[in-house]
Amino acid sequence: MSGPVNVSPPRGMRDLLPDEVELRDWAQGVILDTYTAHGFRHVETPALESIALLTGGGGGENEKLIFKVLKRGEKLDFTAARSEDDLVEYGLRFDLTVPLARYYAANHAQLSQPFKAIQIGPVWRAERPQKGRFRQFTQCDIDVLGEAGESAEAELILATTAALAALGLTAPQVRLNDRRLLRRLAAHCGVNEPAAQERFFITLDKLDKLGPGGVLKELREHPELATSGMWDRLTSVLDGSSSWTLADFAARIDGAADAEPLTRILAAVGAALGGAASVAFDATLVRGMGYYTGPIFEIGVEGLPYSIAGGGRYDRMIGALIGRDVPACGFSIGFERVIALLQERGVRAPRGSRRVALLHEAGTDALGTVLAAAAALRAQGHTVSLTARRRKAGKQLDELQKQGFDGAASLTAVGGEPEVKWFAGP
Amino acid sequence: MSGPVNVSPPRGMRDLLPDEVELRDWAQGVILDTYTAHGFRHVETPALESIALLTGGGGGENEKLIFKVLKRGEKLDFTAARSEDDLVEYGLRFDLTVPLARYYAANHAQLSQPFKAIQIGPVWRAERPQKGRFRQFTQCDIDVLGEAGESAEAELILATTAALAALGLTAPQVRLNDRRLLRRLAAHCGVNEPAAQERFFITLDKLDKLGPGGVLKELREHPELATSGMWDRLTSVLDGSSSWTLADFAARIDGAADAEPLTRILAAVGAALGGAASVAFDATLVRGMGYYTGPIFEIGVEGLPYSIAGGGRYDRMIGALIGRDVPACGFSIGFERVIALLQERGVRAPRGSRRVALLHEAGTDALGTVLAAAAALRAQGHTVSLTARRRKAGKQLDELQKQGFDGAASLTAVGGEPEVKWFAGP
Repeated sequence: MSGPVNVSPPRGMRDLLPDEVELRDWAQGVILDTYTAHGFRHVETPALESIALLTGGGGGENEKLIFKVLKRGEKLDFTAARSEDDLVEYGLRFDLTVPLARYYAANHAQLSQPFKAIQIGPVWRAERPQKGRFRQFTQCDIDVLGEAGESAEAELILATTAALAALGLTAPQVRLNDRRLLRRLAAHCGVNEPAAQERFFITLDKLDKLGPGGVLKELREHPELATSGMWDRLTSVLDGSSSWTLADFAARIDGAADAEPLTRILAAVGAALGGAASVAFDATLVRGMGYYTGPIFEIGVEGLPYSIAGGGRYDRMIGALIGRDVPACGFSIGFERVIALLQERGVRAPRGSRRVALLHEAGTDALGTVLAAAAALRAQGHTVSLTARRRKAGKQLDELQKQGFDGAASLTAVGGEPEVKWFAGP
Repeated sequence: MSGPVNVSPPRGMRDLLPDEVELRDWAQGVILDTYTAHGFRHVETPALESIALLTGGGGGENEKLIFKVLKRGEKLDFTAARSEDDLVEYGLRFDLTVPLARYYAANHAQLSQPFKAIQIGPVWRAERPQKGRFRQFTQCDIDVLGEAGESAEAELILATTAALAALGLTAPQVRLNDRRLLRRLAAHCGVNEPAAQERFFITLDKLDKLGPGGVLKELREHPELATSGMWDRLTSVLDGSSSWTLADFAARIDGAADAEPLTRILAAVGAALGGAASVAFDATLVRGMGYYTGPIFEIGVEGLPYSIAGGGRYDRMIGALIGRDVPACGFSIGFERVIALLQERGVRAPRGSRRVALLHEAGTDALGTVLAAAAALRAQGHTVSLTARRRKAGKQLDELQKQGFDGAASLTAVGGEPEVKWFAGP
């Protein structure tokens, strides 16, 4: 390596220091164990997928954010290339849902029915970097594939609240809605054409940012949505919706039948969680992705302006790959948000053992003696790291404590066990 | 997603099924815990690195196998591009060593001295796919950065043998050599120029594949290596080397001083491992990478023709990034080989609980009752998965057993606890 090389990670990506990785490993382990106890099974797909799959429509706006990989060798022909598409074959996945649909299509014969998948791994999006938003970040997803009944939604919500509770994130606020009710609402407001409905949902989704006035203003900018009587109808929904029960709301938009699945989910999940969570219908919950077909849900934590988990039913995505409809439903934990929250609260990964620095004189102490002492300390259950003794003993001990060591040990006369000097608590 | 899309993963990459992921998760956890107990700390770097870093010389032949990522937006200018280099900015990492050198250069002020790193993660190489070789595969590396003494080599070898033993891979064969001795050997054979020595090592590394005759034949194809008396000297080394002690060998090539560090490592590691491993000098061990500067080592298992872990000292790689020399030494477990070996031996991840399928009548049983029964079974410590009851009960039970369930439970009268019918052992 000649010449100066920039040693920063790529823009918007991160080097993770040991304390953060320890917290992340612990949190991933807790989530994985909780999901496993709920009958889900961990699977893995490659980081790369074909561009054809990634740009097939399942990713919405994320399809514009793909890191694309150059073709190699003979396949790469600059002179003949007329566009980017001629130069690329694969891209880095932008979520875990599109790859799971492909995985299920390729492997369903070897999977249980229904198949309950856990995925934990990095995804990549070339977004403009900003505070708390990264170009490589981790998602923790669970999905139930092949189950049309509401037991799927209920299990996803119970498993996710259990995982969050195991991380100390108790008293979650579960909010639910149903895309079928949103379509009823759109129709109630006179918006019937599917593309116009999607446009309507995208604007409605900004209610928490723009407020009712802002939403109405943005809707007015889309002439295809300007149907007679819409404003009155929508205003009456927006103004009152926060206090409506699902039954109230359904009655107003002529959606009683469409409200039945959500009613059953609310009752069952509410009973199962008891007082451990608030579980409520939210008429203005939309969720960003266009592929949802039924119930949608989010989990928030008191005091946080954004959700930490979100998901819903997407019964038509896998069908396009496999040639028959496969009902599907998923829930994704925003792992980076959860880690940021745990760090804010000062949570540290529990440690099973104490960390000891074994100080030795490099070049003076016989290596065999040092290794034997380290083995003896490990046999006592300690985590042991060999460390060359420096001249300023007091300064070195201070530094070791700052680095997270719980104590330091010195070699004693040959044959003796090393003695640990434990640091005083901070 | 319209039209037929190929649902296979990219060429040379894999979808991992649940049983394999379970084994991999267990093995990674065992390795991580063992390394942590030895004082190493887990760190993470992004999957992408700048092309400038990746092609800086630390990767040898691997630099030709980089999956390169297309620039985005304004940075991407087709009309002005004259070569691939104008189109790419980042590449997927091909190993964990080059990224670690950058990580240390960027973050050393916040890391303990010496810094002992664990890295576990995927790397990507566009190699021709073949049996057991993949284009995305996992590496498990430990490195000691900032420690010039042989305690670094000793700790790496002891931690790695301990990790392998914890996976059931006992009685490892540890083979060691030293690049300084190899350079002495080259000089002894009349090859003195550094580039010619590297050429000499690359051919010598093929000894196990080509045999002594093949190695001599290949060396004769390189006129720069044809020094007077070389063949006699090398033949005498190749013929006898397997039975030589380090002292014998060092005496023959005038390398007594260069043999001292390896002598100390062999003695200390041999004593620490006792009868649990064979630890031996191997005069013909080369290791592929050009960046090694001192001791090099591999671990094999009886009956396997290839090593399952390899590493060595590379004291000059980090210096180029940080502006001062930083001694460094690393050991990498070939995770895919370890997993293949465990699978061949029929090893399965130990399970903490039994897996129960809770059968229910979708649409008939009240969802709340089903969820309460699942919660009751989980409270007994079981892993529980809701499963819709199918018409052919016997066939469904057979399938559940085949899928790895240990039993099936049915709903009983309201209020009663569900009863589990455990499957008979296979």
